[in-house]
Amino acid sequence: MSDNCCIVLDRLVEGAPRPEDFRLERRPLPEPGAGEMLVRNLFASVDPGSRGRLSGRASYAPPLRPGQVMEAQTVGLVVQSDGGRFAEGDLVAGALGLREFAVTKGRGMRRIADWEQPISTAIGIYGTPGMTAYFGMLDVGQPEPGQTVLVSAAAGTVGSAAGQLAALRGARVVGIAGGAEKCRYLREALGFAGAIDYKAADDLADAIGETCPDGVDVYFDNVGGVILQTALGHMADGGRIVICGQISQYNREGTAPEGLVDPHPFIYRRLRMQGFVVFDYADRFEAARREMRGWIEAGRLQFREHVLDGLERAPEAYSGLFQGENFGRGLVRIGELA
Amino acid sequence: MSDNCCIVLDRLVEGAPRPEDFRLERRPLPEPGAGEMLVRNLFASVDPGSRGRLSGRASYAPPLRPGQVMEAQTVGLVVQSDGGRFAEGDLVAGALGLREFAVTKGRGMRRIADWEQPISTAIGIYGTPGMTAYFGMLDVGQPEPGQTVLVSAAAGTVGSAAGQLAALRGARVVGIAGGAEKCRYLREALGFAGAIDYKAADDLADAIGETCPDGVDVYFDNVGGVILQTALGHMADGGRIVICGQISQYNREGTAPEGLVDPHPFIYRRLRMQGFVVFDYADRFEAARREMRGWIEAGRLQFREHVLDGLERAPEAYSGLFQGENFGRGLVRIGELA
Repeated sequence: MSDNCCIVLDRLVEGAPRPEDFRLERRPLPEPGAGEMLVRNLFASVDPGSRGRLSGRASYAPPLRPGQVMEAQTVGLVVQSDGGRFAEGDLVAGALGLREFAVTKGRGMRRIADWEQPISTAIGIYGTPGMTAYFGMLDVGQPEPGQTVLVSAAAGTVGSAAGQLAALRGARVVGIAGGAEKCRYLREALGFAGAIDYKAADDLADAIGETCPDGVDVYFDNVGGVILQTALGHMADGGRIVICGQISQYNREGTAPEGLVDPHPFIYRRLRMQGFVVFDYADRFEAARREMRGWIEAGRLQFREHVLDGLERAPEAYSGLFQGENFGRGLVRIGELA
Repeated sequence: MSDNCCIVLDRLVEGAPRPEDFRLERRPLPEPGAGEMLVRNLFASVDPGSRGRLSGRASYAPPLRPGQVMEAQTVGLVVQSDGGRFAEGDLVAGALGLREFAVTKGRGMRRIADWEQPISTAIGIYGTPGMTAYFGMLDVGQPEPGQTVLVSAAAGTVGSAAGQLAALRGARVVGIAGGAEKCRYLREALGFAGAIDYKAADDLADAIGETCPDGVDVYFDNVGGVILQTALGHMADGGRIVICGQISQYNREGTAPEGLVDPHPFIYRRLRMQGFVVFDYADRFEAARREMRGWIEAGRLQFREHVLDGLERAPEAYSGLFQGENFGRGLVRIGELA
C-alpha cells in the first residue's frame, strides 16, 4: 500500500499564517489495532478557528507543536475496521487532520447520513460551521420576526448560514462582507435586506446606520476588532451580541487586543453579549441537521464551497482564509470516493 | 403654610460632584390642581445613578439643567388630594426630588404597604435598589447552588442585597468593598464566604484568585473600571457578568472609558455579559417585595441605612457617595411623619 501524505506544522506561526509555516511529509501507513479503524480521508477543511493552536500558547485546546499534523475536520471512508465503532465502507466525519490516512478509535466521529450530499457538507453546512451558525444565531442570538440582524463575515460559511437562519425566523438581515462580489451574493442569491462592503465603505458607522435605521437587535460577530466596536454603536435596546469568532484578532497574539467593548451602554441599552462553544450543543446536533436538511432541500438555505484539489494545497488555502480570499467553505479534496 | 425648601442643581457637574454644585432654594408652596396631590416628603435618597443626568449630556434620561430640582427617590405623605390617585394620609413612594413639598398626579408612584418599616425601606430594600439587586442577581445573574458569586461595591445598598440574595440561592458569595469595616460587615454580619478590601489588597487579581479558587460563576458589577477588568480574568466557564452599575466611571465623562472588555475570552469561556434597567421588571416588583419581606422578617436579608438629618445635607451626602463614604442606603430625612 501507499505511504501516507500529511501536512504538518513546520514552525510556530507568528502573525498571519503563511504556506511556508507548513510542510508536506510522507509517513508510513498506520495499522489499526484492536478496536481501531483505518480511515482514508476524502475532504478536509481549513478553519480559521485552528489559528489559536498554532502559536505555541495554550488556549481552550492544547497548542500544536512543530512536526504535528495540522488539525482539520475530515470526511473519510473506513477502509479497514478491527472491531472499531464503524464498519468498512462507512463514510465518517471527524477531525482526523490534514492527512490521507488516519487510524482512529472513532471518538467524536459520526457516520454521515445518506442525504448529506455532497459528502463534504458533513463538515460544512451539516458540520461544525453549520451547527455554529444554527446554535449561535437561534439559541444565543434569538432573533425575532421583524427584528434587525447584522452579521459580519456574512459571506463566510458560518456567517451566510447564520444570516439565512435569522431570515427564516422572520428577521431582516444585513451582512457585512469584503468586496462587491460577496455583497452581491448576499443580496441577490441569499436575499439579504442589505449588504455592506466594509472594504469600500467610506464610513462603516454611517453604512450600518443607513442599512439598520431602527438599530441592530442581534449582532452576530465573526470578526471582532473595529467592526465589532462600530456595530456596538448601533445596537437597539435589548440587543444581543453573539461573539462567534474574532478572525480579525487571531493573528494579533501578543499585541493589545482591538475591539474592546465599553460595558457602560450595556446598562441603558439593556445589551447582552455572549460567547459560546458549539460542542456544548452536541446532543442537539442531529435534530438541527434534520431541520436544516428541510430548508436546504427546499432551497431556503444555501451554501457555497471553495474546494482546492489536493492535500498539498491546504497550506495555501489556509493562509488565504486570513486574506479574505475564500468565498465559501474552505476545503481540500484529498481523494475520490471510488 | 410654610414655603418649600428645594435642593437645585446650581451648575453642571464636571468630574466628582461637590456640595457647591447644588444650592438650597425656597420656593412658594405649590397648589394641587384637579386630579393632583400635594405630598410632603419625609425621606429622599441620594443615588449614584443620578450622576448621568448632571453633566448636561443626554443619556437614557434627559439631562437636568441648572435651576432644576435635583432628582431623588422619595417617601412622603399625601397632605392634600384633589381627586388624585391617592388619598390624604396615604404614604407614597416615588421620585419627587429633593424638596419638602411636591405636587404630582402620582404617575409612577405607589402607596407603600404597612409592613414596609421603617418607611424609608420603601425607597431602599423595598424600592429601586432592592429591586435592582433582586432582578439583577436572580434574573440576569442566575446563580446556582454551590456556584461562586463575586459582587463589587458589596457593602452598598444594591451590592449587599445582591450578595445576600445569591447566598439565599445557595451560592458561595465573595464581596469586594473598600475598607476593613465594610469587609468585616460582609463576613460577620452578612455571612459572606469572603470579602476583599480593594483599598488594602496588594494585588486585586491575586485576592480574587485566592477567594474564588474555582473561578467566578457570576460577577455582579457595580463599579466598572479596573475592578471589572480584573474580575473578568477570573471567570469560570459559562460565567455571567451582570453590568449593574459603573460608579467608578460616572465622573469620567468626556475621557476614555476604563474597564473595556476583551470579547475574545467570551468564546472559549462561554461568557455572557448583560446589562439591564430595573424598571423593565416593574410588573414583578410587588411579588419580589413580598418575597423579600419574608427573608427580611426571618433575619435572612439585612440592610443598612445611612441617614443624614435635614434636606440641606443632601449635597454633602451626594458627594460623599462618590468618595465611598456612605455605608448603607444614602438617605436624608426631610421631615417627621407626625
